[in-house]
Amino acid sequence: MRTHYCGLVDEALIGQTVTLCGWADVARDLGGLCFIDLRDHEGIVQVVAEPEAATEGNAEVIAAAAAVGYEDCLRVTGEVRRREAPNAKIPTGQVEVVARRIEVLNKAEPLPFHSHENAGEDVRLKYRYLDLRTPEMQRRMRVRTKLVRALRRWLDEAGFQDIETPILTKATPEGARDFLVPARMHPGEFYALPQSPQLFKQILMMAGFDRYYQIARCFRDEALRADRQLEFTQLDIECAWVGERDVQDATEAMIRAVFREVADVELGAFPRMTYAEAMRRYGSDKPDLRIPLELVDVDALVKDSEFKVFTDWAGVDGGRVCALRVPGGASLSRKQIDEYAAHAAKYGAKGLAWAKLAENGDVSSPIAKFFADGAFAALLAHVGAGGGDLVFFGAGNYATVSDFMGAVRLKAGREFGLVAEGWAPLWVTDFPMFEWDEEAGRYVALHHPFTAPAVDDEAALRANARSAVSRGYDMVLNGNEIGGGSIRIHRSSMQSAVFELLGIGADEAQAKFGFLLDALKYGAPPHGGIAFGVDRIAALMAGTDSIRDVIAFPKTTTAQCLMTGAPSTVPESQLAEVHVQVRRKQ
Amino acid sequence: MRTHYCGLVDEALIGQTVTLCGWADVARDLGGLCFIDLRDHEGIVQVVAEPEAATEGNAEVIAAAAAVGYEDCLRVTGEVRRREAPNAKIPTGQVEVVARRIEVLNKAEPLPFHSHENAGEDVRLKYRYLDLRTPEMQRRMRVRTKLVRALRRWLDEAGFQDIETPILTKATPEGARDFLVPARMHPGEFYALPQSPQLFKQILMMAGFDRYYQIARCFRDEALRADRQLEFTQLDIECAWVGERDVQDATEAMIRAVFREVADVELGAFPRMTYAEAMRRYGSDKPDLRIPLELVDVDALVKDSEFKVFTDWAGVDGGRVCALRVPGGASLSRKQIDEYAAHAAKYGAKGLAWAKLAENGDVSSPIAKFFADGAFAALLAHVGAGGGDLVFFGAGNYATVSDFMGAVRLKAGREFGLVAEGWAPLWVTDFPMFEWDEEAGRYVALHHPFTAPAVDDEAALRANARSAVSRGYDMVLNGNEIGGGSIRIHRSSMQSAVFELLGIGADEAQAKFGFLLDALKYGAPPHGGIAFGVDRIAALMAGTDSIRDVIAFPKTTTAQCLMTGAPSTVPESQLAEVHVQVRRKQ
Repeated sequence: MRTHYCGLVDEALIGQTVTLCGWADVARDLGGLCFIDLRDHEGIVQVVAEPEAATEGNAEVIAAAAAVGYEDCLRVTGEVRRREAPNAKIPTGQVEVVARRIEVLNKAEPLPFHSHENAGEDVRLKYRYLDLRTPEMQRRMRVRTKLVRALRRWLDEAGFQDIETPILTKATPEGARDFLVPARMHPGEFYALPQSPQLFKQILMMAGFDRYYQIARCFRDEALRADRQLEFTQLDIECAWVGERDVQDATEAMIRAVFREVADVELGAFPRMTYAEAMRRYGSDKPDLRIPLELVDVDALVKDSEFKVFTDWAGVDGGRVCALRVPGGASLSRKQIDEYAAHAAKYGAKGLAWAKLAENGDVSSPIAKFFADGAFAALLAHVGAGGGDLVFFGAGNYATVSDFMGAVRLKAGREFGLVAEGWAPLWVTDFPMFEWDEEAGRYVALHHPFTAPAVDDEAALRANARSAVSRGYDMVLNGNEIGGGSIRIHRSSMQSAVFELLGIGADEAQAKFGFLLDALKYGAPPHGGIAFGVDRIAALMAGTDSIRDVIAFPKTTTAQCLMTGAPSTVPESQLAEVHVQVRRKQ
Repeated sequence: MRTHYCGLVDEALIGQTVTLCGWADVARDLGGLCFIDLRDHEGIVQVVAEPEAATEGNAEVIAAAAAVGYEDCLRVTGEVRRREAPNAKIPTGQVEVVARRIEVLNKAEPLPFHSHENAGEDVRLKYRYLDLRTPEMQRRMRVRTKLVRALRRWLDEAGFQDIETPILTKATPEGARDFLVPARMHPGEFYALPQSPQLFKQILMMAGFDRYYQIARCFRDEALRADRQLEFTQLDIECAWVGERDVQDATEAMIRAVFREVADVELGAFPRMTYAEAMRRYGSDKPDLRIPLELVDVDALVKDSEFKVFTDWAGVDGGRVCALRVPGGASLSRKQIDEYAAHAAKYGAKGLAWAKLAENGDVSSPIAKFFADGAFAALLAHVGAGGGDLVFFGAGNYATVSDFMGAVRLKAGREFGLVAEGWAPLWVTDFPMFEWDEEAGRYVALHHPFTAPAVDDEAALRANARSAVSRGYDMVLNGNEIGGGSIRIHRSSMQSAVFELLGIGADEAQAKFGFLLDALKYGAPPHGGIAFGVDRIAALMAGTDSIRDVIAFPKTTTAQCLMTGAPSTVPESQLAEVHVQVRRKQ
């Protein structure tokens, strides 16, 4: 149908006749002299139809060119020649194609919008096929394709075996909500879509596979935050006969290799940090190390003050009082400081104390009065604050303070332009095994209930559950958790003990996870793995904040596909076939 | 955790100390001298524990070895030495490992079965992890992994872009039944799982992508025939600006390349055959060309007989009378011939006439008496029948006769050992656009309603719908349709015309496929593609009849996963969340 791609026509073709297919990106009729920018996935080339050309059929060419509209599908045959006025902005800018034949393969109706820059996201999503035609969206989607290809190649070469696991599987309520699928052949029963292939990949290790991977679709019926999708793509990895360093070293090498290949970025060796250190220094288990700010614990320096908010928590078990110095932050107005307090409040802060140091060293702070002579100055000195700086203080229980001070750190880092260029990866390790859920009055798993504890002894785990450390690990990049994994429990007695600590009784465990408990009995090898968020990594590499920009057909935050209109009602007869009916409002 | 893989220990390691991990495949205690066959994914090596060895800790080694049971997970450290009695059957058979340390990483309980040869499929599926551990299942799954990898590599190198399409999509009842997923955020509405990414891949072409592929999960809620799965894997391909030969030539080259790479098979150039020729010669649109038998039309030779079954159909428009010569078939008993008739009846035959030629040329046939002198002999001669042969005859409407005679051909080919070794690929082309559905009193699409007709003009299509030929094509291998595709309709007026001919009204078309009709209006390029059945190709390559052997966790013919117990009931609260309830029996 064509001899060349539009975007690849170059000077080597001058004098040759080419046939090109593409969309009319722009068509200009300058008094009979028509220019068409013809676009395909490779790029754009200029086509010209000249009235003065006396070649046979030229009148038809002129007429056809004059009638071309935006996004018409054309096939153009013509001669490549050097352009009189080159366009340095496009790779084909040295040449143009003099049309000898213009065939309209499909005429386009007037478009609902012209380019995604000037259209709202709703209209872009409704006419997704027009949005995806833009060079920027084509580029982003190509980054994703390249990323996935590079990941696969690395894993293939490293001996990992690509194995598919089911999408129609068993409902195992744990963590997020399952999507349910009524089973036609089994009235009243349901399949569930997998939240991840977690149990299947563990079973694969018990099934004698050595190293597994899958680019797997996963499903979570959660309230959609701005950047979540109902379905998302995970690079799922599992290995038998390994410890955590085996998994970490291999996948760190993989991520380094794909960043080198796809983004021409050298990540270097990843620093390693325990969960405790990450919370202490950055107030986050996924610290953005591009921001040089750190939290500083100040319990010792505030415990003798008269500020009750501090003294209630300073030096108290489970409490924390810490400070964050913001260089140059003294420029903030009261209103701006209040915005920080409001931001902190979203993460649980009841208040956000602060101190400003003028350039001349004068201190203004609502809490200075609670400190003895020199004590407040000593506190500020301990934090390293100097003229022009602002210091925020947080006090409360350890987790809450870390959370909101971590959020303040991110906000300050971004707003003060302190986010360094480039890439900051790290490993976070030594997560707590459990979190105590005050509301439920029981432990919940920080990773998931199949994560192995650091101690290999059930009695020892039971004795120190609250402080138990797991064999879980996260890979963090620029403040995003891009991968998370663990060494798994491989003995059924330990798995039962963990279920028990999580308040999952023996009967419930058998009903939900009986097949796993069975499999653990018949020679389950030690194993572990990790899962990476492909959508997020692709977005990072493509330089966009939204994973929707690297998903061909994403859903909205209200879980709809604006293009197809999913979800939708279905005929009653179809529901009857699968033995369900819509529940009427009470 | 280990220094080497069990299956790769070889003579180069003699004298070295190795650490191996694996399962105890067999453990034999010969009066204190213990042999353990240690198995991992690479293979098996013999480990020996010798009582006479006086090394430190040897008593513990002996005790550990003596206690080893089937499928225990072990870590063994020991010295590689040449074996006194080599075992030529295994690659490691020249060596053994003298154990210095045996660590039981996980003790296995007594197994429910030992190897899949002596276990029923139900127990194999329940304990799938044990079944998958067998070397034969490991080999099959590896064939699949290699196939998929080879397909991807070929497509990546050919510039095809891997793009994911949604799993949660819109219900568009067409063909098979959709699986439905209630939408929590939209009470009374449902997503559907895709039967294929057909519309999405067409939209991708309209979205400016040039060549697309995806190894895509597809879902069909159909009655499960022996070798169908609820979910299956399809290699989905689509190209813009192409005609059928572009798609066929590219994908034929791809299939040739992967057979060469994965199975060391040279398929050669594929013969091409129209649908009409395939039905005429083989009674099938997916002929198994390994069987040399062909149907022979005999209308002209039977129309003057007095056998009403023949004369009713011979030379009649829409009728067919044909014969199949089975070399050596005269050996069949009446009972065996009746079995053929019963087989044909399953495909719609009301009877199956036959003639036997004894070695001496004597003819015995229930229908010979209906022929004039010499006419029956002339008929048999026309078919090429000689002494020792059997000839079957079928008469009726063209499609039914072709179907059941095609089935008789396959049965005879298999039972008489006429299936040639090797591989017989071909393209079948020029399919009818529509089939007339007598029951529904309307046309149905032979491929799907998006397939372009050979004529590019709506009026011409309407005028000759019954005999219209489509631009569809199938790739057939050894009697299996392994791929099917077409050039698609790319103009909305033609798409509307085809919907109309299929009895899909404008409102219904807009409701179900409005987004496609819209997209066709805004510059849809000519495009086409194909989809390959990955499960089937993997099964063919792995040399197994069942696709379940190349799917890690398949479902049974009753749509259950015996390992996890899916589908299952779910708590009422979970159903309430998604606004459905189970329909009570009336």
